[in-house]
Amino acid sequence: MIKVKALDKSLEQAVQTIIDGKTKPIGALGQLESLANKLQLIANQRAHNRISVNDSSVVSRNKVRLTLAKPSMLVFAGDHGINEENLSIAPSAVTRQMVLNFLHGGAAINCFCRSNHIDLTVIDCGILAAISSNDMSEVSASSLSPKTPILPRLIDQRLGSGTLNFTKQAAMTKFQVEQGFDYAYKLVNKLSDEGVDVILLGEMGIANTSSAAALMAVLTSYSVEQCVGRGTGISDEQLARKVMLISQALQRLSTTLPLHDASQLTEPQLKTLLSELGGFEIVQMVATILAAAARSIPIVIDGFIVSIAALVAARIQVNVCDYLIYAHVSKEKAHQLLLTELAELSQAECQPLLDLGLRLGEGTGAALAFPLLQAAASFYNDMASFAEAGVTV
Amino acid sequence: MIKVKALDKSLEQAVQTIIDGKTKPIGALGQLESLANKLQLIANQRAHNRISVNDSSVVSRNKVRLTLAKPSMLVFAGDHGINEENLSIAPSAVTRQMVLNFLHGGAAINCFCRSNHIDLTVIDCGILAAISSNDMSEVSASSLSPKTPILPRLIDQRLGSGTLNFTKQAAMTKFQVEQGFDYAYKLVNKLSDEGVDVILLGEMGIANTSSAAALMAVLTSYSVEQCVGRGTGISDEQLARKVMLISQALQRLSTTLPLHDASQLTEPQLKTLLSELGGFEIVQMVATILAAAARSIPIVIDGFIVSIAALVAARIQVNVCDYLIYAHVSKEKAHQLLLTELAELSQAECQPLLDLGLRLGEGTGAALAFPLLQAAASFYNDMASFAEAGVTV
Repeated sequence: MIKVKALDKSLEQAVQTIIDGKTKPIGALGQLESLANKLQLIANQRAHNRISVNDSSVVSRNKVRLTLAKPSMLVFAGDHGINEENLSIAPSAVTRQMVLNFLHGGAAINCFCRSNHIDLTVIDCGILAAISSNDMSEVSASSLSPKTPILPRLIDQRLGSGTLNFTKQAAMTKFQVEQGFDYAYKLVNKLSDEGVDVILLGEMGIANTSSAAALMAVLTSYSVEQCVGRGTGISDEQLARKVMLISQALQRLSTTLPLHDASQLTEPQLKTLLSELGGFEIVQMVATILAAAARSIPIVIDGFIVSIAALVAARIQVNVCDYLIYAHVSKEKAHQLLLTELAELSQAECQPLLDLGLRLGEGTGAALAFPLLQAAASFYNDMASFAEAGVTV
Repeated sequence: MIKVKALDKSLEQAVQTIIDGKTKPIGALGQLESLANKLQLIANQRAHNRISVNDSSVVSRNKVRLTLAKPSMLVFAGDHGINEENLSIAPSAVTRQMVLNFLHGGAAINCFCRSNHIDLTVIDCGILAAISSNDMSEVSASSLSPKTPILPRLIDQRLGSGTLNFTKQAAMTKFQVEQGFDYAYKLVNKLSDEGVDVILLGEMGIANTSSAAALMAVLTSYSVEQCVGRGTGISDEQLARKVMLISQALQRLSTTLPLHDASQLTEPQLKTLLSELGGFEIVQMVATILAAAARSIPIVIDGFIVSIAALVAARIQVNVCDYLIYAHVSKEKAHQLLLTELAELSQAECQPLLDLGLRLGEGTGAALAFPLLQAAASFYNDMASFAEAGVTV
């Protein structure tokens, strides 16, 4: 089992004292101050992981320079059997088309990653049909955006060709869940070894709001109605049907899992829950969050789907919350509720950085928020103190 | 008199159609969509300014590529006679110390401009004592941030050595206002000729919230109490005294200006108002906004003080509103009211991009919001359409 260390909160005040000594009124940088503090505590923990305990004076004096030099956006894609129920605005084939769009460099996430200098990787966790070498040669032959030559990598971590329909049966086997965790752990360890110092998460998967809403309904006190959103824009009728089908699925699950006391679910039970409700991309994001937190890498959480993965990871090990940064609040109504839940679980604020009415996914909110992390690091690292600047307030 | 053209709103729908054709659900990029639309309309107008009417097919087909390649942050600094009333947490000497901090590269605005690749210029509009060549050689000899070699330029546009105390007399003469307008127009024209394609505004001036609050109380229907904030953190007693002194000043003004019907003030009367209430930096920001709008350059508005300058500029020519982008909403309570006022005046939304609890000024909010403008331009320029990407939604 992976072990995530809690951050050493006893350093928080010392870091805040450094921030308070900067040439600005106390608290004048608002949310960026708590962000810088969190990033510094994570950086300290990462330095601690690397050095011997006897050599920790640098860390304890908060002299670890904040760096966010190698950001990695990971977009996890997967298809969902439940889409045969017609709960989405789009057919499952669109997942694959959008993955190809990512690989061509033509999607919103490509634009925002380029704009903010974030390395982008697409992970096929199990879309309906794998991207073939034919597809890939087309990509290299005809990039849609000739001005922007940097195209994302595609990594094959397929757990199948779409999940099964969880309203009728388990979305996947427990073996597939374990395989997904294994893939994700290895990926994070590789990225960490390559020097990646911040991980941003995104996802693509037609109908994945159904899996996410079902997981939320199990793991929180909110009703299915509260957890179900319109996704990317379904009708009232589809919405009612979505609620009904998810409720039926939870009914089925309650015969095998103690859902009446879901706050007590063990790690094996939570993995069973993931196997029941899916999806492939959510499973791999849960494991990615656990692994990144274990390596003390800050993780930027995007919208509703990624936040669900964060909730499951936090229920497996609550310490992961220390490493999570919430990029934005989605227009998906359940997202705000979910952030409240995460705040209660972690007993800390989960204030998102942006509120722009986004409801796209792909990691777009995380990519857009990234410059705010860099700005927080920048002022923490480089802003003069009153003494240094000779300011006499 | 400078002439600001209204944007051609008839193009809005055509631009939105392009945005709606991108590979994302309709409206899924929220506020970034209206931002991209506004930036595109401004870019079209700027292209129109340059080309002959007969050659306008490129513009009318919205094929003008959005560029925000040369951003210029202008931080206007000035001192305020009213500070002798002890309404601020800091003595006026701190304005100069902070200007030196800017020139050393050690302030928050330096960090955020570096972090977001924004060129930074500091304009001395009339701080108490000018920065001497001695000060400047100190700067070059001992930069506080050796890792960050790019230091801002200082431009001398001094209108005096601090304004007079406007609770007792006019802050400055009408000649000084005209001189300030002249300085600012020339500066913007120079920047525009150099290819600057977006201007961001910031300010520094101990006690400038007093001038700003007084201007707001005159130009809006809000009471002095509503317009006065705590600035960077004054006491209840200072707050009450600030309200009283500003009210007295407005009483004095009402004998020379028709304040009972302030919505009808003419441009000469608005300039008289500026001469009465100051400050030097506000005057120059008003003129900068007018000049930039006249050149069809988008202007990123920071917090409370800059927004007051925007309000005065908008009262001189309401068309400037078409060119304003609101970076953030400040923690200063009056700022939200002011944004509401600007929305009514322009009959358009003035939704700020960020809400991070900032209350620092210096242009920090504008600098932090800038990557969102770049992201908006990026998706508008480079994101694939459904047809281009072969997505079948």
